[in-house]
Amino acid sequence: MEALRSTPSVVRKVFLAQEVRDTELRVLLGKNNIPTAPLASGRGRDLVGRDTAHQGIIFTVNPSSLLVSLDDFLKTLDMKKNLAVAVLGEVQDPHNVGAIIRSAAAFGLSGVLIPEHNQVGVTGAVVKASAGMVFRIPLVSIGNVNNALKVLKEKGFWIYGLSMDGKMALGTEVFDAPSAFVVGNEGNGIREKTLEACDITLSIPIHARTESLNAAVSAAIVFYEWSRKHPEAL
Amino acid sequence: MEALRSTPSVVRKVFLAQEVRDTELRVLLGKNNIPTAPLASGRGRDLVGRDTAHQGIIFTVNPSSLLVSLDDFLKTLDMKKNLAVAVLGEVQDPHNVGAIIRSAAAFGLSGVLIPEHNQVGVTGAVVKASAGMVFRIPLVSIGNVNNALKVLKEKGFWIYGLSMDGKMALGTEVFDAPSAFVVGNEGNGIREKTLEACDITLSIPIHARTESLNAAVSAAIVFYEWSRKHPEAL
Repeated sequence: MEALRSTPSVVRKVFLAQEVRDTELRVLLGKNNIPTAPLASGRGRDLVGRDTAHQGIIFTVNPSSLLVSLDDFLKTLDMKKNLAVAVLGEVQDPHNVGAIIRSAAAFGLSGVLIPEHNQVGVTGAVVKASAGMVFRIPLVSIGNVNNALKVLKEKGFWIYGLSMDGKMALGTEVFDAPSAFVVGNEGNGIREKTLEACDITLSIPIHARTESLNAAVSAAIVFYEWSRKHPEAL
Repeated sequence: MEALRSTPSVVRKVFLAQEVRDTELRVLLGKNNIPTAPLASGRGRDLVGRDTAHQGIIFTVNPSSLLVSLDDFLKTLDMKKNLAVAVLGEVQDPHNVGAIIRSAAAFGLSGVLIPEHNQVGVTGAVVKASAGMVFRIPLVSIGNVNNALKVLKEKGFWIYGLSMDGKMALGTEVFDAPSAFVVGNEGNGIREKTLEACDITLSIPIHARTESLNAAVSAAIVFYEWSRKHPEAL
């Protein structure tokens, strides 16, 4: 429904079980000339896998049309505002990618930058974990994290790397310039070269009995802390 | 490894692939007299499912021995300290339950209360999503959320319900008494009767384009905010 309301152009085709009687859905499908096909009983499992609940409605989408280029994205930004973006650095779990997009949308970030390689793309699982937020916040395709950070710096962004060994404790940072938050890989964190490109490394203080936080949880807490200091972004 | 180091009594049996050459693992297994069996090639898939990475080591555990009773748990608490606990109210997704346990451990909470019914128990998926933290923070079995809240109140806890419609914005709360944080169901939030039993309902300010946060993310942000105001707990 989020896709059809916000960006119907990404929806290629919809399989619908006979028992689905959602009037708004059928109106939106008709209005946008989206081809539909009946979803035969048992067919859903073949399409999305046994472990995925599909509620009788299955979409095929073209995720690339969800993505904008970094140049086009930067043109839309008002750099006089104290805005923020997230940069994914080799995040592997689609649940985490979806959750990070959802949290970025919730805390008023301006976009999520997603590298083309070594990184989960915008798959069905990501769309689902984002609770539809992939259709509400700009997703920006970047070729390479380090090049994108260079471009962001030139534009005036301050680059923050989220790291358990970060030098600055999260609560003490004021975020008084446009901010880019780099989220690293679940197991290995941010790559060495990327860490060197960060202006500041941020850590979240935690109890000694734990080694780390979940990647999507750390990202959400940093976005929350940023939004606490920028309530005008909400 | 976390299980063997912290609470070896929960481990019933271990299946080990021949190629696993971890000396510490084998020493701990021997020391604790835990029966092992060879893990034949392809057998792992039958035991844990096709989608689960097992790295050649599969444990069967007795999760009930991880759980303590509410009475026993309360006896261990020093109520003069400004401590906090989490209370799960019908959280359904094992990833969320595991992530909440992991975050509770990270932010210095004293325990996680888990109802017996309408709630995911401590399954293998929960253990995994907790990154081993189920073995590092007390997990407390409760029969019924509302009865447990009554007991917590008598003990001196202040009960906070996490709700998108909560009356108090998270950042403004000081948490100057022992705190119990109730986390509701992913789709429906906290039950009406349970909400009435809360002293305060807490909401996290978010952008109008989003309807809600992921349950594990909201919980983590509340625990983080609590720990920010109680750095001595870390």
